[in-house]
Amino acid sequence: MTLKEKIEAANAETLRRITAADPVLVDVAPAAEVIPGMRDRLMLHSGPPVDWARMCGAQRGAAIGMCLFEGWAKDPREAERMIAAGEITFEPNHHHSTVGPMAGTITSNMWVWVVENKAFGNRAYCRQVESFQQFGDYSRDALAALGTWRDVWGPALRAAVRRMGGVPIKQMVARALLMGDEMHNRVVASSSIFSNAVAPLFVELGLPKEQAVSTLYYTGNHPFLFLGISMAAAKACVDPARGVEASSVVTAMARNGTEFGIQVSGLDGEWFTAPAPRVNGLLLPGWKEEDAGLDMGDSAITETVGWGGFVIGGAPGILSFTGGTAEQALAYSRDMRAISVGRSPDYLMPALDFEGTAVGIDIRKVVQTGMVPVIDTAIAHKEPGHGIIGGGIVRPPIECFTKALKRFAEKYKG
Amino acid sequence: MTLKEKIEAANAETLRRITAADPVLVDVAPAAEVIPGMRDRLMLHSGPPVDWARMCGAQRGAAIGMCLFEGWAKDPREAERMIAAGEITFEPNHHHSTVGPMAGTITSNMWVWVVENKAFGNRAYCRQVESFQQFGDYSRDALAALGTWRDVWGPALRAAVRRMGGVPIKQMVARALLMGDEMHNRVVASSSIFSNAVAPLFVELGLPKEQAVSTLYYTGNHPFLFLGISMAAAKACVDPARGVEASSVVTAMARNGTEFGIQVSGLDGEWFTAPAPRVNGLLLPGWKEEDAGLDMGDSAITETVGWGGFVIGGAPGILSFTGGTAEQALAYSRDMRAISVGRSPDYLMPALDFEGTAVGIDIRKVVQTGMVPVIDTAIAHKEPGHGIIGGGIVRPPIECFTKALKRFAEKYKG
Repeated sequence: MTLKEKIEAANAETLRRITAADPVLVDVAPAAEVIPGMRDRLMLHSGPPVDWARMCGAQRGAAIGMCLFEGWAKDPREAERMIAAGEITFEPNHHHSTVGPMAGTITSNMWVWVVENKAFGNRAYCRQVESFQQFGDYSRDALAALGTWRDVWGPALRAAVRRMGGVPIKQMVARALLMGDEMHNRVVASSSIFSNAVAPLFVELGLPKEQAVSTLYYTGNHPFLFLGISMAAAKACVDPARGVEASSVVTAMARNGTEFGIQVSGLDGEWFTAPAPRVNGLLLPGWKEEDAGLDMGDSAITETVGWGGFVIGGAPGILSFTGGTAEQALAYSRDMRAISVGRSPDYLMPALDFEGTAVGIDIRKVVQTGMVPVIDTAIAHKEPGHGIIGGGIVRPPIECFTKALKRFAEKYKG
Repeated sequence: MTLKEKIEAANAETLRRITAADPVLVDVAPAAEVIPGMRDRLMLHSGPPVDWARMCGAQRGAAIGMCLFEGWAKDPREAERMIAAGEITFEPNHHHSTVGPMAGTITSNMWVWVVENKAFGNRAYCRQVESFQQFGDYSRDALAALGTWRDVWGPALRAAVRRMGGVPIKQMVARALLMGDEMHNRVVASSSIFSNAVAPLFVELGLPKEQAVSTLYYTGNHPFLFLGISMAAAKACVDPARGVEASSVVTAMARNGTEFGIQVSGLDGEWFTAPAPRVNGLLLPGWKEEDAGLDMGDSAITETVGWGGFVIGGAPGILSFTGGTAEQALAYSRDMRAISVGRSPDYLMPALDFEGTAVGIDIRKVVQTGMVPVIDTAIAHKEPGHGIIGGGIVRPPIECFTKALKRFAEKYKG
């Protein structure tokens, strides 16, 4: 068997594992209870490893917010002092079977979505998505919303999801792709149908009226409700595809606002990084180009399984958020086929006549074509203390892929 | 002012009225309580006027079903006898500010959606959509579902809608058009967001637990929940545009399975009819081409206001139901601009770069171009006693438009 044949076989196996995945939302729970290795004074964050000195403004703001949320510090100044003194340990979400949106900060008392991949038995986790603290806003209001998630909405959803015996995600995503979602920055349809699915349970379970009503208003009106589920599902789907000997398929793309990092199946455990790129998109009223931070978040795990920018052609509604034309969006989705190993048998794009979505980014194809994945994403401020300021399209630095391919060649040719 | 100038001005006014409409769902109520002229032993039906002798099989089956539902007859044989003896009066929905899906049968105890056009103060009505009785199925199960709608779901929705002070429809439709709905045969997104909007009310109102749970499962899982609302809204939007002197804009397209009929603003009250066409589409498993009835239902009121086939290019998810390609669907939506008076300022198509949808079918343009409106629709059986058997695309007979234009010329040139 030539090396090329060996790689092709390995990539076919990687694709098989990703497409065979069967993600089911099985719980909503405090991080300390479910995330492996979670402990006091540990803060998980998005992207490849980063220390406080190199951490971007938005992630610093989010970290301050979590110190206040946990009660580790009584004010932002104390939080900064503690962190600078090394009293808080930072580790990437990805080292804990976990992903997090934007700054991605997760500590013990942050409730997370728990998705089990029933085909392989592994679990993955993601914190809930909101528009403030995860972008670096540590104000009283931003933290109050995290508190309500922990005390009211999270527990209600936990009860519902458990009573349902889990919520299968595959069919829900397939339906949402027919409804203009791309499962990354446009999850309005999946959020809506997920809310429909859990709504009766709050009544059946006999939750206190105030909690049931509050949760129904929350789930029924949160345009990003499903993103945390989608991210946890993507992570759960791709994790069994890690560590396939000689596979050149990407198993993670993650950014911390300072660096963009990728991981590759046949090079498991290694990060290949380059400076985080600038997002090309639209800013919300009141913000200027120079306010924008660099690309941030673990949410590109969705592109890693063939959602997000890979299916943006079927989600033209997102263009009011990211900019661009419907034809460009379709072209992105067609282009992504050239750098992918195969197609999904389950996730179909009606705008491309129900063809299967492109799945499995092959670093060889990326380097050969010079075409890097398309990621659609939100934009945070470059300084701590702000909520979301915009959204757009971003392409990873090609250096991540060239570095990975060089290492791949060393490992497998040598 | 030349006649042409007079027509252009009239059509501009017609367009203004349609686009200025502000539909709000204000109630869900028994037909007898709200529909003008509703009375005992009166049965409203879809399409232009038709008598029992010429009525198609599906509409006959539906009429038998309503006689049983109302308790007028104890079995189908007695129902047929009563109807044949002239004991039941048939009138078109459209003569009562009302529309109905497929056979469209409405009697006193059928609960209907009530939409008020707040910009003009008029109201319109539509019965709820289901997949059996309205297609001609008069079985015990089909009628039991109508009973639950009357006794459980309708009253729960009435309470919620009233407590909300009405549900604005314009924004909901605009959102759904960004989510792959076309508001006629694909209303999964609007159904989902409507269900989320009413869900908390069932708890806040303190409805009996069983009723609240049953209604939440019903609203959260009915893929055509919103179609009755969409149809009533369309009727409420177009009714104020009727009777504009010298306007050549279509104000109704309706079919009874025997004839296709249209109405025109400047020729108010007249029907222009031709034999109902065959629907070109896909049949559900087990059904053959020769089983299919001809085109039926008032649901083409949605195309009359620029939804349905006019926006199908943004709803490629429907193609699994109707057949056709995504490119064809986009072409339909572009084509419809050529026969329309203008564009909607509120309803946008993301797949066509957020351009406004084509609104206001001009019979002159239809006859000049030979291009008739595109309607996507469901298919009923040609015989009584069956539920839905398929769906597809249908084009009205051009004769409806040539007849109307001839009459228009007589009235306005002479």
